[in-house]
Amino acid sequence: MSEKVIVAVDAMGGDNAPQEIVKGAVESLQKNSKIYIKLVGKEASVQAELAKYDYDRERIEVINTSEIIETGEPPVEAIRKKKDSSLVVAMRLVKEGKADAVVSAGSSGAILVGGQTIVGRIKGIERAPLAPLIPTAKGQSLLIDAGANMDAKASYLFQFAKMGSIYMENVVGIKNPKVAIVNVGAEEEKGNALVKETYPLLKACKDIHFIGSIEARDIPKGDADVIVCDAFVGNAILKLYEGLGEVFLAKVKEGLMTSLRSKIGALLIKPALKQTMKSFMSNEYGGAPLLGLNGLVVKTHGNSKSGDICKSIGQCLAFREQKINDKIKEKIKNEA
Amino acid sequence: MSEKVIVAVDAMGGDNAPQEIVKGAVESLQKNSKIYIKLVGKEASVQAELAKYDYDRERIEVINTSEIIETGEPPVEAIRKKKDSSLVVAMRLVKEGKADAVVSAGSSGAILVGGQTIVGRIKGIERAPLAPLIPTAKGQSLLIDAGANMDAKASYLFQFAKMGSIYMENVVGIKNPKVAIVNVGAEEEKGNALVKETYPLLKACKDIHFIGSIEARDIPKGDADVIVCDAFVGNAILKLYEGLGEVFLAKVKEGLMTSLRSKIGALLIKPALKQTMKSFMSNEYGGAPLLGLNGLVVKTHGNSKSGDICKSIGQCLAFREQKINDKIKEKIKNEA
Repeated sequence: MSEKVIVAVDAMGGDNAPQEIVKGAVESLQKNSKIYIKLVGKEASVQAELAKYDYDRERIEVINTSEIIETGEPPVEAIRKKKDSSLVVAMRLVKEGKADAVVSAGSSGAILVGGQTIVGRIKGIERAPLAPLIPTAKGQSLLIDAGANMDAKASYLFQFAKMGSIYMENVVGIKNPKVAIVNVGAEEEKGNALVKETYPLLKACKDIHFIGSIEARDIPKGDADVIVCDAFVGNAILKLYEGLGEVFLAKVKEGLMTSLRSKIGALLIKPALKQTMKSFMSNEYGGAPLLGLNGLVVKTHGNSKSGDICKSIGQCLAFREQKINDKIKEKIKNEA
Repeated sequence: MSEKVIVAVDAMGGDNAPQEIVKGAVESLQKNSKIYIKLVGKEASVQAELAKYDYDRERIEVINTSEIIETGEPPVEAIRKKKDSSLVVAMRLVKEGKADAVVSAGSSGAILVGGQTIVGRIKGIERAPLAPLIPTAKGQSLLIDAGANMDAKASYLFQFAKMGSIYMENVVGIKNPKVAIVNVGAEEEKGNALVKETYPLLKACKDIHFIGSIEARDIPKGDADVIVCDAFVGNAILKLYEGLGEVFLAKVKEGLMTSLRSKIGALLIKPALKQTMKSFMSNEYGGAPLLGLNGLVVKTHGNSKSGDICKSIGQCLAFREQKINDKIKEKIKNEA
């Protein structure tokens, strides 16, 4: 295994491509000397951006592609037909062993489909979950699965719990992370059919530190480090986090504008409040990993800035150095 | 049909029973002369509370019961065994036509079980959903089902959409309410198996104003008036609303304490902010209705104060006067 970590970056994905993507890639080189980048996209545009920076040319390679997958496109068709798109080519680099990981701010659907079909799953892994970190009062928790696999089975959730645990312990550095399953109450007999079937599997699993059910109310408190759920529920949790955050902040602002007194107060609190909310909503790992694949796929949000791209690339380094996939393979082998 | 609306109130349910429950019942009499109350609970305790107030004795009857269902008890067993509990007796009053509705701040599980087994469902209704109003940027939306029926079928969700629509139009007064189904994306082909099966039923239904899928991100914006989902997802949404609200406010407060400047600002904004958040999180209907039963069951939260009880009783009046159950029966008949 080489000391290098090669990250294929989809230079054309997201609202701020290629400017912020290229900028983030260049920034990442300064963070760690082991990082090497393959920037995949329209060469002319990518080179025009690269020309703005001073960087080690040995560590960035540009791979020209002619197509782009747009956000609105049906993912399965896009992945199948656009063979020369930046995303498909970046993923093929991982498949062919020419890169260790992919980072993309492009179409979520296409990233999920491409991850499973091009990069491919680790042998024995039934499904690859999307696992973003969400902010909590205590720090952050891993939400797994947040939208990759509709209509999950208990055996998928069982593997998600193990993979999430390995990620939290080794990439985020939480020792013996607490694993909980999203449920409608704390009692063991509660839940829908999926949760009732999954619960005893998790309880019996020696590879994880299972603490039982977690009600959605307690997720923001940070009561568990790894939050296991099916993708439909996880997607609702993730998106409600975003939507409710926006509406709450809007309501706070509205409250501040109701009197002269509160308006003066608003001017005084603004910088401190902005800083606190910003640090609450951000994390140092960038995008969400798609776990259980032959290589890492990191999906960062569509409006990612260079900082998000840089952090996502940094996550790939930690993932590789901590040999996450070897650890996942080992746990899966124990199952058989 | 009498002009009177008789509400059976579980005087022993909730953290503040019987004090706040009795107080709320007395308050409700002043709101509308049609309201009559049957206070169900330990007579000595209830009478001791009633003695504190001046009220029309003709309009409050106390019905003595010897048992109380506690929050932690397994609901099915509690409902079956505690025949002389305040909740069971209150529900039997509705079943026997001696009351129009029940209001309880007691054990959620017992209320849901008792509603379905004692009060019973309207003929043709497959399941009775719990339908709380949740705050949004535009006002409030009805979340249906928020926790009553695990493992829903498409035919349940179809009926929930109709019942929710009738309730929002007639009790809350939203003309032609917009109905949406919770989904992981806006496109029709998205979703889990349940949503994919339900979507075309809702789309084809002439009784409702179906606007398609809603992502959880857009729920707090108030994009739809009636939010249809299965109880597991609805419960996660409802509880995350509560939990995230608390953590956000805590973070805002933390932000306010970071500098002298922000501390001074905090003193100035406190009253306005408190008022805004309070009005955002409250609603004028009190508890959540359990719809589709032979009578109305309103579940108010465990820490309900007199105001919540009074509003919940007021909701029973509107429910009765607007003949919600007749309207539900009519829509169900059309199905057959």
